[in-house]
Amino acid sequence: MSSSSKTLRKLQVVYPVPADIDVANSVEPFHISEIAAGLDLSPDHYDLYGKYKAKVLLSALDELEGRGDGYYVVVGGITPTPLGEGKSTTTVGLCQALGAFLDKKVVTCVRQPSQGPTFGIKGGAAGGGYSQVIPMDEFNLHLTGDIHAITAANNLLAAAIDTRIFHESAQSDKALFNRLCPLNKEGKRNFGDVMLRRLKKLGISKDKPEDLSPQEVKKFARLDIDPDSITWRRVMDVNDRFLRKISIGQGPEEKGMVRETGFDISVASEIMAVLALTTSLADMRERLGKMVIGNSKAGEPITADDLGVGGALTVLMKDAIHPTLMQTLEGTPVLVHAGPFANIAHGNSSIVADKIALKLVGPGGFVVTEAGFGADIGTEKFMNIKCRYSGLTPQCAVIVATVRALKMHGGGPEVVAGKPLDRAYLSENVALVEAGCVNLARHISNTKAYGVNVVVAVNMFSTDTEAELNAVKKAALSAGAYDAVICTHHAHGGKGAVDLGIAVQKACENVTQPLRFLYPLDISIKDKIEAIARSYGASGVEYSDQAEKQIEMYTRQGFLDLPICMAKTQYSFSHNASEKGAPSGFVLPIRDVRASIGAGFIYPLVGTMSTMPGLPTRPCFYDIDLDTATGRVIGLS
Amino acid sequence: MSSSSKTLRKLQVVYPVPADIDVANSVEPFHISEIAAGLDLSPDHYDLYGKYKAKVLLSALDELEGRGDGYYVVVGGITPTPLGEGKSTTTVGLCQALGAFLDKKVVTCVRQPSQGPTFGIKGGAAGGGYSQVIPMDEFNLHLTGDIHAITAANNLLAAAIDTRIFHESAQSDKALFNRLCPLNKEGKRNFGDVMLRRLKKLGISKDKPEDLSPQEVKKFARLDIDPDSITWRRVMDVNDRFLRKISIGQGPEEKGMVRETGFDISVASEIMAVLALTTSLADMRERLGKMVIGNSKAGEPITADDLGVGGALTVLMKDAIHPTLMQTLEGTPVLVHAGPFANIAHGNSSIVADKIALKLVGPGGFVVTEAGFGADIGTEKFMNIKCRYSGLTPQCAVIVATVRALKMHGGGPEVVAGKPLDRAYLSENVALVEAGCVNLARHISNTKAYGVNVVVAVNMFSTDTEAELNAVKKAALSAGAYDAVICTHHAHGGKGAVDLGIAVQKACENVTQPLRFLYPLDISIKDKIEAIARSYGASGVEYSDQAEKQIEMYTRQGFLDLPICMAKTQYSFSHNASEKGAPSGFVLPIRDVRASIGAGFIYPLVGTMSTMPGLPTRPCFYDIDLDTATGRVIGLS
Repeated sequence: MSSSSKTLRKLQVVYPVPADIDVANSVEPFHISEIAAGLDLSPDHYDLYGKYKAKVLLSALDELEGRGDGYYVVVGGITPTPLGEGKSTTTVGLCQALGAFLDKKVVTCVRQPSQGPTFGIKGGAAGGGYSQVIPMDEFNLHLTGDIHAITAANNLLAAAIDTRIFHESAQSDKALFNRLCPLNKEGKRNFGDVMLRRLKKLGISKDKPEDLSPQEVKKFARLDIDPDSITWRRVMDVNDRFLRKISIGQGPEEKGMVRETGFDISVASEIMAVLALTTSLADMRERLGKMVIGNSKAGEPITADDLGVGGALTVLMKDAIHPTLMQTLEGTPVLVHAGPFANIAHGNSSIVADKIALKLVGPGGFVVTEAGFGADIGTEKFMNIKCRYSGLTPQCAVIVATVRALKMHGGGPEVVAGKPLDRAYLSENVALVEAGCVNLARHISNTKAYGVNVVVAVNMFSTDTEAELNAVKKAALSAGAYDAVICTHHAHGGKGAVDLGIAVQKACENVTQPLRFLYPLDISIKDKIEAIARSYGASGVEYSDQAEKQIEMYTRQGFLDLPICMAKTQYSFSHNASEKGAPSGFVLPIRDVRASIGAGFIYPLVGTMSTMPGLPTRPCFYDIDLDTATGRVIGLS
Repeated sequence: MSSSSKTLRKLQVVYPVPADIDVANSVEPFHISEIAAGLDLSPDHYDLYGKYKAKVLLSALDELEGRGDGYYVVVGGITPTPLGEGKSTTTVGLCQALGAFLDKKVVTCVRQPSQGPTFGIKGGAAGGGYSQVIPMDEFNLHLTGDIHAITAANNLLAAAIDTRIFHESAQSDKALFNRLCPLNKEGKRNFGDVMLRRLKKLGISKDKPEDLSPQEVKKFARLDIDPDSITWRRVMDVNDRFLRKISIGQGPEEKGMVRETGFDISVASEIMAVLALTTSLADMRERLGKMVIGNSKAGEPITADDLGVGGALTVLMKDAIHPTLMQTLEGTPVLVHAGPFANIAHGNSSIVADKIALKLVGPGGFVVTEAGFGADIGTEKFMNIKCRYSGLTPQCAVIVATVRALKMHGGGPEVVAGKPLDRAYLSENVALVEAGCVNLARHISNTKAYGVNVVVAVNMFSTDTEAELNAVKKAALSAGAYDAVICTHHAHGGKGAVDLGIAVQKACENVTQPLRFLYPLDISIKDKIEAIARSYGASGVEYSDQAEKQIEMYTRQGFLDLPICMAKTQYSFSHNASEKGAPSGFVLPIRDVRASIGAGFIYPLVGTMSTMPGLPTRPCFYDIDLDTATGRVIGLS
């Protein structure tokens, strides 16, 4: 019996499955300290945030040092429809099965949802039906403030950039230097610690302001940022399409220094990527300080530390580095950390959450971590970026498939969020399913190539027929899956994913190969991009002039040994969202290339990718309200 | 002995007083549950946020219903220098004296600081020296996320406005209506709850979509917002001057619907004012829903509920409504709630925090609440807006004065933040102090007019001389102060404010008059503005054409019975920051008038007021970093 069994909860399932918020509200969550106790987590190692959330402190890792890790399972998917194929739901359902029915120690690692989609089209992201993280309203709203901290830090850096350009434009080198190093009470000037970092970067080994030559004063004080080179944008965790492209600085006091820029959704911030990929406070301080915001007019990269703000960003992020402990409907523990949007970011939950979880479950236990969207995006980045930085090795990759999405890949009509599904998706059509399995097959072979065992989880809908489900199983096995399992966790909770749990356990216990990356780091940026493009089915890559220019610049600046984080549509292997199935022979267009030096990757933009969603005519928020008598949230989906 | 005495802490003071963060870090805070226990607050009525913060739930009020209130003391100030005169420090010091030395039950009510100034010029706002709220880094950073919630809610509403205009521009009445009321699974259309509010406002008493006439469909679905009338701006809790005036919607997908707007600092959001003035969840839901964002082209006010978002805003604010419990250096309890910037907002801490505190201390206990800036701004709004909505009656108003500021009012040289003080402020000059006391005298007589006893607290600096201090005391008493006391709480903690505590206690016990407001609500908007202007010393008021137009419109729209919240410089009684002392005979210019209908006030702009601060060449953030070995914040001031 696992030690967490005292917090397990038997679900009383109802058919048809009620709305997500009603299922979520139908059980009384355990106090989070009980969930922590089930993990043998000492109260010294977590901070409560209300009754149902706690931040697990990184110090837990120190105490657990030397303990072995559990099995490490990543959940990816096939290329999804815009409705999503239940990847989060499957991640949660699998863990409920492992913890509540198969007597395993288990931790689910999921990403914090963005509030943009919660109030926009998609609704919440806590899973669905009887496989959810609860309380689902707290999960979907604010949580413990990590995304708000990212927004604050991102925008402090943005303000620092424009203000610095403004002040440099109006001051002589000497005046600028004297303001940066003002006289203290003793009438002396000093360099702050963050300034010593810039001096070191410039190769100036003096540590007293008065010793600098006029040339060195200029070099130190004048960042001389080229406004056209600035890649750092502001962010907001709201779907606000009118902020995609804006002009700033139009006030009379800004003296005509107008500049075009825009806002991204907060989860696309490089700071979110830093949070996901960092391994300690000290590592985070270094990464935040070396984020590059653009270039000087001479072409030198300008960092957050050059602007003097790397320390302040770290202070803003000091609590966000600790993952948030929550629970599933059946009382198994969940760590929530980092953010979604794997299409425009890397979209994986954090390394620190996974590391803590692997120690907490220990040998024989399971950590199930979710990667965003299809395996071409989420799992690829999980393997080549996240595992590369963490040094962790997964044993099993789950690929979530649905009959609905496979029918779409087989040639079914377009699936549009908010519109009723075509009949093709509601009645049996085995041929359509079989035709669509090329998509599943390519995800399987791509994922197997990393050396993990692949288990396909068919997330069953009530309209699926046995013949359709069998067609998927057959296709999965013949494409090389270790196993393929039909799951009904949406309707039945963990009980509906017991077979999946057993398959995952066997897959973890029978790994025969080492972890292999898709590309080595020590080849050129283009060679790395091309390796990923080939895995999509592309015959080649086409670079815009802008992309060529950027690649050349980053190569010259020495940003060579970094992995690649593709920004590509999640709706196709290719750059064209309407190319379903397993397209091949296309040429992948790279429109632009950016660098997230703090997070540690090069970031090519495949075609046009929006980094700020919009709101529809009738956003989700129309249904959302508070029952002011009970304090309960209504209408969250 | 008060029941909170077990959490009292004896300070070991050091001279000279170390940096604020070092004093703050020199004591180990009590676990916040100990502070709560000292207040006899049941664990059911608060939620922990880490070890040193807790949200006190509104449900505490239900349990304490029927219990009597404590004494209610408001702390205001004279017209300050840009350095601040130690109002927060005095508020904290007074409470440390009452709680730790005079054996009273006491709660300090302060506002959550904005992160903008924390990283900009001013630094933190936890008090100073040996009179601080601790942990001061947690107080100054994120706290329990209230301001982040305000930012999120404010900007969701902003996104809803522009998106609605965009969608209305592209759709027929019928299409718009059908999208707003889509077919459900049963093939029927329904009105959501929030839509019923709009129908009611429009006088349409039908509740089935199919019953509406084409004319009613148009009236319901088409808000027809006049873009030029939009007063709702976006907000950010960062000093980002380049966002003061911007153009949005420049992306190709926004089809040329470019519009000029801008960002304010988050604490200036109407939602902050709603948070401060609301009394319950149900009241907050109503206030958020009726916030007016601008007009239809026909001149009708458009609200958040018209846009369908009032419920979602309430959900975003549901945790923010609970004040945050913290502690002073000497272990007395503090409630932190709502926000600063009394010049551009009303800048008082919240009604709910004060109400909870008054019950918690009970009869004979003391609640000391801070109002922003000088008494012309903070105390005036405390009395005429906050007390009007709360129904609470203060017994005593403290006015904080410094010799430094009085010398400035007497004709001393300009005081500039970041520049060394002129010699005039560091050596004795009794004549200069005496000349400046006209400023203090007017604040005293204005404040006395509300019917409270006024106690002047002279916040002593090490350079003040006895003759100077005596001059202030004498002037205060002759201007009608109940008492005037020299305080040294910055250097000595509560011990340095014991005399002040005794004076405040006597003032509270000897009230002879009822509370009187400066103006009744049932006079015209202009008459109310003019009553306030006279209290500043103005001989009259001058309205711009824009202000006249707005006043006429709000009058026509029926927004008549609201109090007035002036947006005026904090550096003078007048609109001109350089007019020190007690100016009179000037004509107060009203540049524009806005309405915060949800918060419940009319908001005249006196001259030009920036609602978004900027960053200097060397912002505070240069000094701020994290000691990654200990996790401690460095350099926060």
